[in-house]
Amino acid sequence: MLSKAQNKHIRSLTQQKFRNEYRQFVAEGHKIALEWLQSTWPLKTIVATENWIAMHRPDIQRHPEAELITASEVEIAAVSSLQSPGQVLVVASIPDAPAIVKGVPWYIALDGIQDPGNMGTIIRIADWFGITDLVCSPGCVDVYNPKVVQSAMGGHLRVRIHHGELTSLLPSLNLPLYAAVLGGTDVYEVGRPASGVLVIGNESRGISPEVIDLATHRVTIPRKGGAESLNAGVSAGILCALMVPR
Amino acid sequence: MLSKAQNKHIRSLTQQKFRNEYRQFVAEGHKIALEWLQSTWPLKTIVATENWIAMHRPDIQRHPEAELITASEVEIAAVSSLQSPGQVLVVASIPDAPAIVKGVPWYIALDGIQDPGNMGTIIRIADWFGITDLVCSPGCVDVYNPKVVQSAMGGHLRVRIHHGELTSLLPSLNLPLYAAVLGGTDVYEVGRPASGVLVIGNESRGISPEVIDLATHRVTIPRKGGAESLNAGVSAGILCALMVPR
Repeated sequence: MLSKAQNKHIRSLTQQKFRNEYRQFVAEGHKIALEWLQSTWPLKTIVATENWIAMHRPDIQRHPEAELITASEVEIAAVSSLQSPGQVLVVASIPDAPAIVKGVPWYIALDGIQDPGNMGTIIRIADWFGITDLVCSPGCVDVYNPKVVQSAMGGHLRVRIHHGELTSLLPSLNLPLYAAVLGGTDVYEVGRPASGVLVIGNESRGISPEVIDLATHRVTIPRKGGAESLNAGVSAGILCALMVPR
Repeated sequence: MLSKAQNKHIRSLTQQKFRNEYRQFVAEGHKIALEWLQSTWPLKTIVATENWIAMHRPDIQRHPEAELITASEVEIAAVSSLQSPGQVLVVASIPDAPAIVKGVPWYIALDGIQDPGNMGTIIRIADWFGITDLVCSPGCVDVYNPKVVQSAMGGHLRVRIHHGELTSLLPSLNLPLYAAVLGGTDVYEVGRPASGVLVIGNESRGISPEVIDLATHRVTIPRKGGAESLNAGVSAGILCALMVPR
């Protein structure tokens, strides 16, 4: 059973203020909670129905560090941020900032991505294309926001997420910078460079001028139709498919 | 001023039941409402602040068929489904089903796309890549859902949207069918066929077996990392970028 205090604590983690204070976030629903359980990521609490626990003993036993709480579906729904709450959620620790690893060939850098769905989608894209490192500017949505965790589909487990001012962080990587813009070089002319940073800008303002100034290349997905632009997540996906070595 | 009845009517259009009954939907916010105003799409009502009307007289005058209502931002916010309501919304007519036009080289067909953000994103992708025709199965989310209209960014104005059972509609197009699946042929081996139908499946179940059976090709975006799958909108974008003639 979830105590009143536990209920309140879990619900508080929908707010960034409390995620930052406790350094914890929630991963929920069968598929996503299971990804965390099957990883070595430190968990604080596992909340699941009796049934779910019985079906997933070995996964739960990988996490002796976590408190296991048996709860009803109604109790889980009461703390869930999903539209269709499931039978399980985990409270996981927010890790310390990862170090920049030498020799990483490709990064994605995000300059003020605000939409949680886009952020999650881009983490999932990095994960799909084997891009191990993502850099977020201070203006980005929190990567532990429930909607980000939901749409990243476990990508946090395989993608290192760095935070910092892009104007200082990007030059330190010493890689060519490919800024995704409208009206730049046709991405098909760029080919598949062995290494680089793909920079994706804010959903409405694009990449900030200071960051554009650092770019060694400005790349554009050629357009045939009437749309003014593509969604930020879709652009990131297309550019990864076209630029990152296969 | 918005009357009580007008307020109620506009709010009712957030529900598919009432959109179907009145054959009307809402397009709102400066950018999107303006796209509709600058088109020949039949409008029922234009609701805007005095200020906004003064700034956009020529666009409003293109639509003598529409009733113009001056309203305050507070009144607009009261009927808006946006998080940050704007100074304008239009109530537009839902058009009759478009005819299938001969000679269209490329279609996108959606088999049960449920997420409004994905649906809107895919309409925007079709619009970007110059794909003029989209086919939706009966299991798809309503394309006039407010979130779809928002994320399609005016794509409805340039993309014909057909509805029907894919098992009867797709064979009648007489084009090669490329089903986006996991574990199919590497899309890079498929090249850029002159014509075809790209079939995208439901977010969790994928393409239904009856539709898969019709496919002449099963195509897959090659994966390098650990993610199990890509988001449906992102997959559609990548496949269009890789398959549709440039």
